[in-house]
Amino acid sequence: MTTQQKKLSMISFSGDFDKAIAVFTLASGAAAVGYEVNIFFTFWGYNAIKKAQGRATQGTGFLAKFFNFLMGGFKNLPLSRLNFGGISPHLMTYMMKKNNVATLKELIEASVQLGVNFYACEMSMVILGTKPEDYLHIKEQLGVAKFLKLAEGGQVLFI
Amino acid sequence: MTTQQKKLSMISFSGDFDKAIAVFTLASGAAAVGYEVNIFFTFWGYNAIKKAQGRATQGTGFLAKFFNFLMGGFKNLPLSRLNFGGISPHLMTYMMKKNNVATLKELIEASVQLGVNFYACEMSMVILGTKPEDYLHIKEQLGVAKFLKLAEGGQVLFI
Amino acid sequence: MTTQQKKLSMISFSGDFDKAIAVFTLASGAAAVGYEVNIFFTFWGYNAIKKAQGRATQGTGFLAKFFNFLMGGFKNLPLSRLNFGGISPHLMTYMMKKNNVATLKELIEASVQLGVNFYACEMSMVILGTKPEDYLHIKEQLGVAKFLKLAEGGQVLFI
Repeated sequence: MTTQQKKLSMISFSGDFDKAIAVFTLASGAAAVGYEVNIFFTFWGYNAIKKAQGRATQGTGFLAKFFNFLMGGFKNLPLSRLNFGGISPHLMTYMMKKNNVATLKELIEASVQLGVNFYACEMSMVILGTKPEDYLHIKEQLGVAKFLKLAEGGQVLFI
Repeated sequence: MTTQQKKLSMISFSGDFDKAIAVFTLASGAAAVGYEVNIFFTFWGYNAIKKAQGRATQGTGFLAKFFNFLMGGFKNLPLSRLNFGGISPHLMTYMMKKNNVATLKELIEASVQLGVNFYACEMSMVILGTKPEDYLHIKEQLGVAKFLKLAEGGQVLFI
Repeated sequence: MTTQQKKLSMISFSGDFDKAIAVFTLASGAAAVGYEVNIFFTFWGYNAIKKAQGRATQGTGFLAKFFNFLMGGFKNLPLSRLNFGGISPHLMTYMMKKNNVATLKELIEASVQLGVNFYACEMSMVILGTKPEDYLHIKEQLGVAKFLKLAEGGQVLFI
């Protein structure tokens, strides 16, 4: 353990704004002190790193469109407890700016700059009908076995 | 670490359909590559492995019935973000079938076949007034101390 | 590992009553069998240990008041799935008492008695405009790096 790099791996499952803040605060904070950080995006977790605003999948069938309708983009992530007509992520971002705390966008950028690895869950890509190119900074698609292999010897969180 | 079997332990707390998919995808995926997998069911997590449809507890008092009313069975787990009148777990299952991804039922069966261990949280059984026999494949009832003992030396997730 | 004390660290993120029960059941259960237990409170997780009822922050500006309005106190934590007009935490507490299971208040007290360490997330304190003194038993404010340092070599859960 002494000579090995410390490691933090996270399964980013939730599409909630506040949980995305948690994921990228932990990611950038850990990377800043030298941790290897791996984020495995799955289900709603993709929301935070979508390229296209307001679309969950690039599929064109009815089901893909239905999911698109239900999922928002980076700018309209729901805030688990405070989502009054979409106003609250804006409120939270405002409070973060006002208090000189990094916003979600800044936390994601910092994570990328600090070398945090973004991985996509293979299965959820198949279900949602999306490709890694639809999201920002995806390094690779992984199944569960490869993710567990990556995470070995470090801390793992499900968020 | 080299000669020891790798281990993944999960606390399955949520009754959401999508989180149940996550639990059993991780469980079957890990077991398939040789991990010892332990799932500790507690609170709403029991939903996925209930024998009786539509009933949370086997108790007959008013409170037990109230919980029964509020909790659904395996077939009507809410999907955290997509639960429009119960249609969405069906939609998700449909999308999974369409894309040849294992459904929740199949993932649970695969987990059992692969030797995943199902444990019940003692305390929540007492609160809900249920018995291990009310659920599928429960090996044993455990308290926190025994669960932590089981989980030692491996990864632990709270889902 | 043999001579070292076992360790359980939790990030208490959610303000839900049932998840607070999970945090303090795990905390007191682990501490009772000799674990070092660290809880890192962040975002809504503070709800369970607030001194002032019904107030999230001590700030006096509009935004702080808005958050206060949205967050409840220890006695009115929402129960993720059962929150019908605030009745359900009471129902759950009643069922716990009826079955001789420790209530949330008792679990928190037991955790404190057993030496569980309560830490506050620095960043969320800045966002919410609160101070450690606004909460019960906070030992210290920490950033992500210090928390990860504390958690090293043990289990970590995000709840």
